[in-house]
Amino acid sequence: MELRKPRGTRDFLFEDMELRKNVEMKLRNVFERYGYREIKTPIFEHLKLFTIKSGEEIKEQMYHFKDKGGRNLALRPELTAPIARLYVNKLQRFPKPIKMYYFGSCFRYERPQAGRFRQFWQFGCELIGGKSPEAEAETIALAYDCLKELGLKNFKIHIGHMGIVRGMLEENGVKGEKQDHIMTLIDKGDKEELSRYLNEISFPSELQELLFSLIEMKGDSKILDEILDIVGYRRSVEAIQELKNLESLLEVFGVKNYLMDPGIARGLDYYTGIVFEIYISKTQICGGGTYNLIELFGGEKVESTGFAFGFDRLVEAVGNKTEKFSFADVFVAPVSDETREAAFKIAQKIRKSGISADVDLSRRKLGKLLSYADHLGVKYTIIVGKKELKQKRVTVKDMESGEQKEVQIDDLSDYLRRGLKKF
Amino acid sequence: MELRKPRGTRDFLFEDMELRKNVEMKLRNVFERYGYREIKTPIFEHLKLFTIKSGEEIKEQMYHFKDKGGRNLALRPELTAPIARLYVNKLQRFPKPIKMYYFGSCFRYERPQAGRFRQFWQFGCELIGGKSPEAEAETIALAYDCLKELGLKNFKIHIGHMGIVRGMLEENGVKGEKQDHIMTLIDKGDKEELSRYLNEISFPSELQELLFSLIEMKGDSKILDEILDIVGYRRSVEAIQELKNLESLLEVFGVKNYLMDPGIARGLDYYTGIVFEIYISKTQICGGGTYNLIELFGGEKVESTGFAFGFDRLVEAVGNKTEKFSFADVFVAPVSDETREAAFKIAQKIRKSGISADVDLSRRKLGKLLSYADHLGVKYTIIVGKKELKQKRVTVKDMESGEQKEVQIDDLSDYLRRGLKKF
Repeated sequence: MELRKPRGTRDFLFEDMELRKNVEMKLRNVFERYGYREIKTPIFEHLKLFTIKSGEEIKEQMYHFKDKGGRNLALRPELTAPIARLYVNKLQRFPKPIKMYYFGSCFRYERPQAGRFRQFWQFGCELIGGKSPEAEAETIALAYDCLKELGLKNFKIHIGHMGIVRGMLEENGVKGEKQDHIMTLIDKGDKEELSRYLNEISFPSELQELLFSLIEMKGDSKILDEILDIVGYRRSVEAIQELKNLESLLEVFGVKNYLMDPGIARGLDYYTGIVFEIYISKTQICGGGTYNLIELFGGEKVESTGFAFGFDRLVEAVGNKTEKFSFADVFVAPVSDETREAAFKIAQKIRKSGISADVDLSRRKLGKLLSYADHLGVKYTIIVGKKELKQKRVTVKDMESGEQKEVQIDDLSDYLRRGLKKF
Repeated sequence: MELRKPRGTRDFLFEDMELRKNVEMKLRNVFERYGYREIKTPIFEHLKLFTIKSGEEIKEQMYHFKDKGGRNLALRPELTAPIARLYVNKLQRFPKPIKMYYFGSCFRYERPQAGRFRQFWQFGCELIGGKSPEAEAETIALAYDCLKELGLKNFKIHIGHMGIVRGMLEENGVKGEKQDHIMTLIDKGDKEELSRYLNEISFPSELQELLFSLIEMKGDSKILDEILDIVGYRRSVEAIQELKNLESLLEVFGVKNYLMDPGIARGLDYYTGIVFEIYISKTQICGGGTYNLIELFGGEKVESTGFAFGFDRLVEAVGNKTEKFSFADVFVAPVSDETREAAFKIAQKIRKSGISADVDLSRRKLGKLLSYADHLGVKYTIIVGKKELKQKRVTVKDMESGEQKEVQIDDLSDYLRRGLKKF
């Protein structure tokens, strides 16, 4: 019986990896230009870390298990909690703000669906100890620049603030778990269930109408004034003022493609300020916001802003825009056994000069080697013949044009470099 | 209660990551120069994949668990089995030889010891479908060049061949599991238990002496002739002939720092040819060889050669040879609230030019900002004052020399680039 990979997981072959690394490298460059540096935490953590953050229900969606010492461990479902733990363990005394980014895989146990895998990758960051709204504006600018760097255009940044709806619920006596549950339903976009629940808790119908119109409103800066016209609750007004400040800073930071959207919510009460989500058509590729998670894990109160890209979705959105994939720049083909050792030496020489080279390790005839070189996608095949070798020469075949040229072995690296436009 | 990372795992902070990525990048460069391209497999696999390869005993050293669908899964303890599975699933029809490399974390459940962690990283490769000995020689050359690239000098490559000892045991009637068990004990270097076991199976004492002297012999090419003098078994002689061929090819490929060592062994019977291990003093940093694992997983018989570096040990051997760590090249400090927005714009402009810049997000006074910039390790702090700003200028402070200079904002990126020697 043939063994298969576990359900819901993926293998990445050569070209997949090339594209993924290309996206990864571009993201790294942008994050580092903003003064972020990378950190890494373990693949598994104590289960408790995630239930403290997200509630016991999250166990249903996680891979968790007891280790042989009886400890409850979980494959991480996300990276915000581990980063907060790391901060509490090691970075509390570090000068602030602290900017850190991460790239790694996360795991969820759920029915595999199109575009949702059991092992998936997140690329994200945390800015700990900055001041709002400039920290928020810079964070959104970072996400914006990443998408620009990847050549994406058709994205929309939806920005909301937890205070708008929470303020309105609060002042109408809906607090604690009830309030959180409503925020969760708004986050899910489940209006039917939201309506049912509001009736269940006897939320007045005129306020229900107000709530539904609030979460439907989205648009450019003018929308904030429109919202101000319909909600006068203290916390809601403060939230809208914060969004206005943020908006003028987004202008300064050069961010475009955004809209204000009070329907962007989170059900977790450590989200204290703005929240944002980025979409490409209907697909969410990024989520973030400002929260106070550190206290939850036993640290001193400090605000942090962060976001994570769904890396797999980002890769999908970028699509295959990489150049032609190749295994090597050059293939070295000996014409016969007599020139085999010379071929190995030539390959080593080329590699030393920084060019990627492959050489025959299969002892096949020249015709087969040329078609193998073609499969590898090399630009040049170097044919090592006995007669030419005596004159310290080889034949360089351009695999696109078919042109052949004799080149002195001593000049070979320079010749190839020019042709490959390297260095 | 403060939450901690799970026992035996590690968090990597900024400078750790910088060093690790530096090593990773150098290895990638060398692998790619040899025509290898990267692939990636899931973090967990079906448990069976690893027990088929290594026997049921390996369960003791693994993290394995049932998922909610009742499947037995395991966090991968190594990457050779997943790569072989991937080959069988997807690459059997691919033109050969196939060169692939991988970098990822593996897991073992054992008592944490100095230098041994429960999550650890392997960087390795497989060459599937090449011909020995040139495939073996090139593979060893690749490992050798990696270590050279990392600036390591004091390493030794020990090369053995499974056939030498197995041939001698075979022709003296020790076969199957008994033979494998002896190979395992040789691999472990447990001479006491080996001696006990040989007595238990009544292996003649003069042959025991021969066996012990064989596995003690190690040295340069002459040692192979000395071994030929004491073993005349067909398979042993063939193995020595293979090693001789390999040795002349290692010369061609420019490999040094190696010795022949028949004491290098594996207990698993799919190792069909040479095996090698690389040491820095007593620490093994690499292991590899030629084997036929594909058949075991239901594929067609094909020989492959591969090796893996223990990435963590490699990083330790390289040590901290990176340049001075910094979070950014430049820090932008507004002198007062009035110049704050200008500071943000200047930071964005610098970032756009490809230079890494941080900017004040904490609203602190200039004195504090300069010491924060110092902590970040930046080369320049850009002081944005009101008076200078009116003249479209800023003050650039060299953080090493303390020197200050007024620079036109329009010339700033060029000025910084020259100072940072970028591009």
